Amino acid sequence: MRYEELTIEGRNAVMEAFRSGKTIDKLYVQEGLQDGPVLSILREAKKHDIIINKVKKERLDQMSETGKHQGVIAQAAAYEYAQVEDILNAAREKGEPPFIILLDNIEDPHNLGAIIRTANLAGAHGVIIPKRRAVGLTAVVARTSAGALNYTPVAKVSNLGNTIEELKKEGLWFVCADMDGELMYNLDLKGPIGLVVGNEGNGVSRLVKEKCDFVASIPMNGNIDSLNASVAAGVLAYEIVRQKMQ
Amino acid sequence: MRYEELTIEGRNAVMEAFRSGKTIDKLYVQEGLQDGPVLSILREAKKHDIIINKVKKERLDQMSETGKHQGVIAQAAAYEYAQVEDILNAAREKGEPPFIILLDNIEDPHNLGAIIRTANLAGAHGVIIPKRRAVGLTAVVARTSAGALNYTPVAKVSNLGNTIEELKKEGLWFVCADMDGELMYNLDLKGPIGLVVGNEGNGVSRLVKEKCDFVASIPMNGNIDSLNASVAAGVLAYEIVRQKMQ
Repeated sequence: MRYEELTIEGRNAVMEAFRSGKTIDKLYVQEGLQDGPVLSILREAKKHDIIINKVKKERLDQMSETGKHQGVIAQAAAYEYAQVEDILNAAREKGEPPFIILLDNIEDPHNLGAIIRTANLAGAHGVIIPKRRAVGLTAVVARTSAGALNYTPVAKVSNLGNTIEELKKEGLWFVCADMDGELMYNLDLKGPIGLVVGNEGNGVSRLVKEKCDFVASIPMNGNIDSLNASVAAGVLAYEIVRQKMQ
Repeated sequence: MRYEELTIEGRNAVMEAFRSGKTIDKLYVQEGLQDGPVLSILREAKKHDIIINKVKKERLDQMSETGKHQGVIAQAAAYEYAQVEDILNAAREKGEPPFIILLDNIEDPHNLGAIIRTANLAGAHGVIIPKRRAVGLTAVVARTSAGALNYTPVAKVSNLGNTIEELKKEGLWFVCADMDGELMYNLDLKGPIGLVVGNEGNGVSRLVKEKCDFVASIPMNGNIDSLNASVAAGVLAYEIVRQKMQ
């Protein structure tokens, strides 16, 4: 397992970290704040015997990595990367066919956070990201994930293509998103599945695309080239949800 | 019509502005850049007799509102807000039932940009935003829209509830997204429709929700509360697309 340092910023993200049972090391709250959400956070902190530091806004601004601390920053036992095996185990424990979202070099932390959030709500068992040339689990990612990072395992792998090959042995089928693919409504996406989402500018890389069993396209009725990466991931993940519910 | 000043930043956004026929007033390019996308932009600029200013990176950093200019900034004839009537006319010209996305106080410019991008590709005829307490068409929005702002009209209205009432007279039905709604797959979303997406933190406001004919919910299979606003808008917009294609 690998660990990374993490500060959790913003009221929702800190509250969600408490709710999920994450170990908070330290809590910093802006002096004078007394509103409902802040009082709830202070109550939670006292309940868990966490040291509360009341500090000036300037101090929080200095500590903040996102610039959006909303008067609350927690330093947490850092987010853990999961192993791919943990993701498969999560599916087994639920008695569900594995549903994994693989990201081929997402660079924008807002997109990564939004996709982890989508993975959680679409019922995916985990997210796999590559070690190189992609954004990792930064504070912006944690904040944008709106707490989903506490529940949805994220694994980091050396080579996405090799991981796809190994997961095929576990019975997974792989679908990637590209414009030249088959309309997603016409594909069977119900079984054990890996959804591969490409980089913001370049889409899915050739080597990864060649490993995929299907190429799915989202209908495009407009003038521009492509959806935002996290929106495309959401639309595809929910097409999988829809088919599974049928 | 109202106008706002605008700088267009980044290679894709500038190139897309040229392609769409937008009037560029001035172009600033970082000294020494010679790669393919920059040369394409310079060619386009010469074709349109636009004054090219080669400047140092520091100058661009200073001008940049997004911090992501990629060596290219254009100053454009500013983006125009459309009128609601323009959006209805766009639908009439295409011979399609109107499909409009209404945003109840989206605050994050990345979300607004991503939603305009989705609106364009989902075949919506326009986007309506409120005048107060919401983000407008800033440079970040233009950049995040990846050029969609050049094609998809965005109207700004004083009161979203009143606009919904007026559009009902034109035959539109309104659906808003909320957790307590009917599962979106069970609703009939095929006719002339307005999709209302709520604020990032608070969802759709009570007054606006009361004006809606349907409340649609996206299936939630996870631990956290809600999807990112632009992802939720994308999932719902594409459920409308799916139903229209049937």
